[in-house]
Amino acid sequence: MSEFRPIGFAGVRLDGQFWRERLDTVLTRTIPSQHAKLGEHGILESLELPDPPPPLRNPPNDHGFTVQVFWDSDVGKWIEAASYALSHRRNADIEAKIEAIIDDLEKAQAPDGYLNCWYLDREPQNRWTNLRDNHELYNLGHMLEGAIAYFLATGRRRYLDILERYVALVRETFGPGPNQKHGYCGHQEIELALIRLYHLTGDRRHLDLAAYFIDQRGAQPHYFDAEAIARGENPRDYWAKTYEYSQSHKPVREQDKVVGHAVRAMYMYSAMADLAAELNDSGLKRACETLWKDVIATKIYITSGLGPAAANEGFTEDFDLPNETAYAETCASVALIFWAQRMLHLDLDGKYADVLEQALFNGALTGLSRDGEHYFYSNPLESNGQHTRWAWHNCPCCTMNASRLVASVGGYFLSASANAVAFHLYGGISTAVTLETGVVQFTETSSYPWSGSVKIAVDPERPARFAVKLRVPGWCRDASAAVNGTAVPMTLEHGYLTIDRTWQAGDAVTLELEMPAERIYAHPAVRADSGRVALKRGPLVYCLEHPDHAGHRVQDYRLPRRADLKTATRADLFDGIVTLEAEGIRLEEDDWLDHLYRASPPRTEPATLTAIPYYLWNNRGPGTMLVWVPEG
Amino acid sequence: MSEFRPIGFAGVRLDGQFWRERLDTVLTRTIPSQHAKLGEHGILESLELPDPPPPLRNPPNDHGFTVQVFWDSDVGKWIEAASYALSHRRNADIEAKIEAIIDDLEKAQAPDGYLNCWYLDREPQNRWTNLRDNHELYNLGHMLEGAIAYFLATGRRRYLDILERYVALVRETFGPGPNQKHGYCGHQEIELALIRLYHLTGDRRHLDLAAYFIDQRGAQPHYFDAEAIARGENPRDYWAKTYEYSQSHKPVREQDKVVGHAVRAMYMYSAMADLAAELNDSGLKRACETLWKDVIATKIYITSGLGPAAANEGFTEDFDLPNETAYAETCASVALIFWAQRMLHLDLDGKYADVLEQALFNGALTGLSRDGEHYFYSNPLESNGQHTRWAWHNCPCCTMNASRLVASVGGYFLSASANAVAFHLYGGISTAVTLETGVVQFTETSSYPWSGSVKIAVDPERPARFAVKLRVPGWCRDASAAVNGTAVPMTLEHGYLTIDRTWQAGDAVTLELEMPAERIYAHPAVRADSGRVALKRGPLVYCLEHPDHAGHRVQDYRLPRRADLKTATRADLFDGIVTLEAEGIRLEEDDWLDHLYRASPPRTEPATLTAIPYYLWNNRGPGTMLVWVPEG
Repeated sequence: MSEFRPIGFAGVRLDGQFWRERLDTVLTRTIPSQHAKLGEHGILESLELPDPPPPLRNPPNDHGFTVQVFWDSDVGKWIEAASYALSHRRNADIEAKIEAIIDDLEKAQAPDGYLNCWYLDREPQNRWTNLRDNHELYNLGHMLEGAIAYFLATGRRRYLDILERYVALVRETFGPGPNQKHGYCGHQEIELALIRLYHLTGDRRHLDLAAYFIDQRGAQPHYFDAEAIARGENPRDYWAKTYEYSQSHKPVREQDKVVGHAVRAMYMYSAMADLAAELNDSGLKRACETLWKDVIATKIYITSGLGPAAANEGFTEDFDLPNETAYAETCASVALIFWAQRMLHLDLDGKYADVLEQALFNGALTGLSRDGEHYFYSNPLESNGQHTRWAWHNCPCCTMNASRLVASVGGYFLSASANAVAFHLYGGISTAVTLETGVVQFTETSSYPWSGSVKIAVDPERPARFAVKLRVPGWCRDASAAVNGTAVPMTLEHGYLTIDRTWQAGDAVTLELEMPAERIYAHPAVRADSGRVALKRGPLVYCLEHPDHAGHRVQDYRLPRRADLKTATRADLFDGIVTLEAEGIRLEEDDWLDHLYRASPPRTEPATLTAIPYYLWNNRGPGTMLVWVPEG
Repeated sequence: MSEFRPIGFAGVRLDGQFWRERLDTVLTRTIPSQHAKLGEHGILESLELPDPPPPLRNPPNDHGFTVQVFWDSDVGKWIEAASYALSHRRNADIEAKIEAIIDDLEKAQAPDGYLNCWYLDREPQNRWTNLRDNHELYNLGHMLEGAIAYFLATGRRRYLDILERYVALVRETFGPGPNQKHGYCGHQEIELALIRLYHLTGDRRHLDLAAYFIDQRGAQPHYFDAEAIARGENPRDYWAKTYEYSQSHKPVREQDKVVGHAVRAMYMYSAMADLAAELNDSGLKRACETLWKDVIATKIYITSGLGPAAANEGFTEDFDLPNETAYAETCASVALIFWAQRMLHLDLDGKYADVLEQALFNGALTGLSRDGEHYFYSNPLESNGQHTRWAWHNCPCCTMNASRLVASVGGYFLSASANAVAFHLYGGISTAVTLETGVVQFTETSSYPWSGSVKIAVDPERPARFAVKLRVPGWCRDASAAVNGTAVPMTLEHGYLTIDRTWQAGDAVTLELEMPAERIYAHPAVRADSGRVALKRGPLVYCLEHPDHAGHRVQDYRLPRRADLKTATRADLFDGIVTLEAEGIRLEEDDWLDHLYRASPPRTEPATLTAIPYYLWNNRGPGTMLVWVPEG
């Protein structure tokens, strides 16, 4: 395990234009509008339990939305995101809204601590009868993460107290004891929350319960079988057909292929990595590494999208990565960031940071619109125009995953040990880090990801020896660095340059990362990308989009292999971005009138291809989009 | 309407090796094995009704197969196929098997003529309550086609009598009268069968009932709505979500886009074309032409596969033609042949024969294995190795569509009017045609589709003037013809060369159709075929298959645009076929170990591509297959 630990986002100020804009948008638009949507769709109302509860209330609710068993989680996740926002900027209105929710939850909580509004409102007698499908512990997990975040942001612990009572009930209910249920949630998440609660409180019982849930998963006789039989069902009638769906097909330590529902998988692997670190558990660490290799070598989109199939919101066979029908749920890319960060703290290896960065700038960031109020749930890499952002969703999980990620993004930039600081991401941040030699102020300045020129001012309170580690991204093939203008030898260890010296106030490190526009090729086994190239620059995956192509369908464009790729700074687009441009051809359709096939190739015209960063697509109206551009 | 009418298959002898082999296989292997499968899976048993029927028997049956509402149709379709076989070669064993089935049906028939074994066995009180889903009239249609075929083959009319009693009940039950149901079947088919019964009996009432079903379709108030309400259901809960599924979303004459379940659509369009001809109905003809144009210009695979989506077994949006996930049900290509033949008899236009031929040699023929006992239900144009032929299926519709097509294929070769004969297909047939000038013996000799050299001996009983029309396929760009060695001017009218002269015994026509190997390109809007070519020669679509590529994944091959395409006669493959070969490259994978994406293109090796006809794939074990080959 590495000695590095993340620096909490609250201690990292975002100064750079790129993340400052995203953060401001989330603070001013996303968080308030998400609360409004929770209200409009009856989700907040679902917390207001009648007393006594009616026997059975049927979906859909008065708002026309089907009541979902996971709504508690959405409220919890909004509170988490809103609390991260409060850490940046207190806001009485938002706090009042959270307090009102806590009022409802306080009233709803059963005398024994149980707190699941769906069950309490509808089937109070049926609690804990369908862990496989009904998300009770998942909901608790997100509620708990919200309560922890709210406590950390405001110091108010009423919500946390409520949830700790519920956790105490869960700890009584689940465990290895003879009178306990030997179960675990069909949707992993509680494990991550319990580990956070352990970090907050130091109460080892939370860590043990998380470890119990993880290690009990997949044990035989299978808990979900027994539970189905107890409900009078035949376990073989399970709608998802396989427990791979919830990664409970076998014990987690025996799992070596990434399978099933993508978000469930990523939350579980994140918890496994957390436990590997906390318990110094080399078996869990090894399982994580095996699963990591599998997903990276056979199942990840270039955007870091995960899970090609809508049917299981998850994984299929190796190399099955269709573009137009890619599911690639936003939540899965967000959760991949969680997992990658944890792997990075098991081993400070740039390969994990590379994936973290890739997921952040592409698969995750695309989930939130420029205006901060529209979302992608699934993230295809090609669209014929049907795929558009939505203002809300019957399953709004992705919305709050986007907002909580952006509101806490500073936490991914750097880590510290007793005598070293490691920079993983760049983009303009400032933070004060306490090392064993004292406090050091770091000010990183760059216009990353638009440019690879990075400057870091290092200001210890007094001269002190410590190491500054700088990640040189895996995509970068030519990097140089200097301290106070003197070049540093570029000896990298697992992707990091280490500058170990005595620093004093006024020292400055510069890092130059060459960031050319590049063609990227896929493994030949990825049939969907055959004969195609993706365009990348730095961490950003690019795409062709209709507005930059005069309304032509972008799938009609071809990029010759030898065409020069140029970069262009475009102040007119999205407050300033870098586009990629190339001279290629466009297939003409005007001579295809009444037939689909012919013996002569399509007529072509010279045409300019203009690519924008993938995360920005579909902010200018519906239309075609393409990541993997055919060569030709 | 054209004056041409098909010549029944029973009058056409298949002499050529290509079709003779397929026919012999169907006669000796497919027909008997299909009967055995009907037995093994409880389908024959489902006709043996207990007396009195038990209240409710639940699926699955003792054979482990779920009892299906459409099993009657499979029995009817097998009898139809078996009867076509009997027309070639009587067989006491097969006839005894058919008689045993008729015994069961005779016993099962209700006193009023009703005969649906699923309803009679399970819910006799619920007949005609769910035309939308439960296939009652569809089943009758296939039963009736079987009865007509059996009568024509053997002269035995017991089965036909049974079905005519049932038809009489249907005629009483359905129609415009105040005490009649204004309904129609959710799965079209009865219409085609009624028209056949009209052709057999001359009883106009059968034609009128077919016309009623067609014209009532999609009328408002919608019959399926009313029926659902009567069952206590909300019509909006319809599982298929839209009546486009059954082409009943609006009246058929107003339909201008091909939508919904592909087989339903093709059966309906076939019936519409039949009615257009029988009733000289220009409105129906116009609707057929509009729908034809739509499917040809926007929705057909190069193999003639129809319906890309598994979800509705049918059509999606224009140009949505994915290859690996193509559904392209065998039945739909068979039914397209039915429709194309009817369009061809509305207007003798080679464009219809081109599609008929394309569907026959590719989309339909691929459905039946070389050994005659394995089947494809769906027909993707690319496979990563998972797609294989099956020995049977819970929904065995495609099996008997394949056998009945092959057993009657001679009926598609030529048509006659009073004083002309039109050849649509070639491949070695002989037939005697009665024209107004007397009987003419035609003997067509060729090794088509392997060669385009065709010879037709024309032997009238006495010298007579009539026209011989020869189709010059749309794929052929260089054709020549001669009569008794003297060249004929190649003036084509709608794809046919007309030789109108006085013929005498011993005359011979020769036709030379240039048949080079060709690259075919798809419309640019077909995203799935972007940067790819299909290989064709004559009517045959080719594919790359693993056994000809040393076990390499065929998706790794690339065909340079300028590579020469060679043909090779391969006596060692499938009793002799013509393969296509080209020198290209293969992508190497050995330097892709732990990553999916990289900035350098895959390493390549020179490699030979060998393509076999698509209809022959997956007869040599499971593995990869590819129709659309990437250029490069």
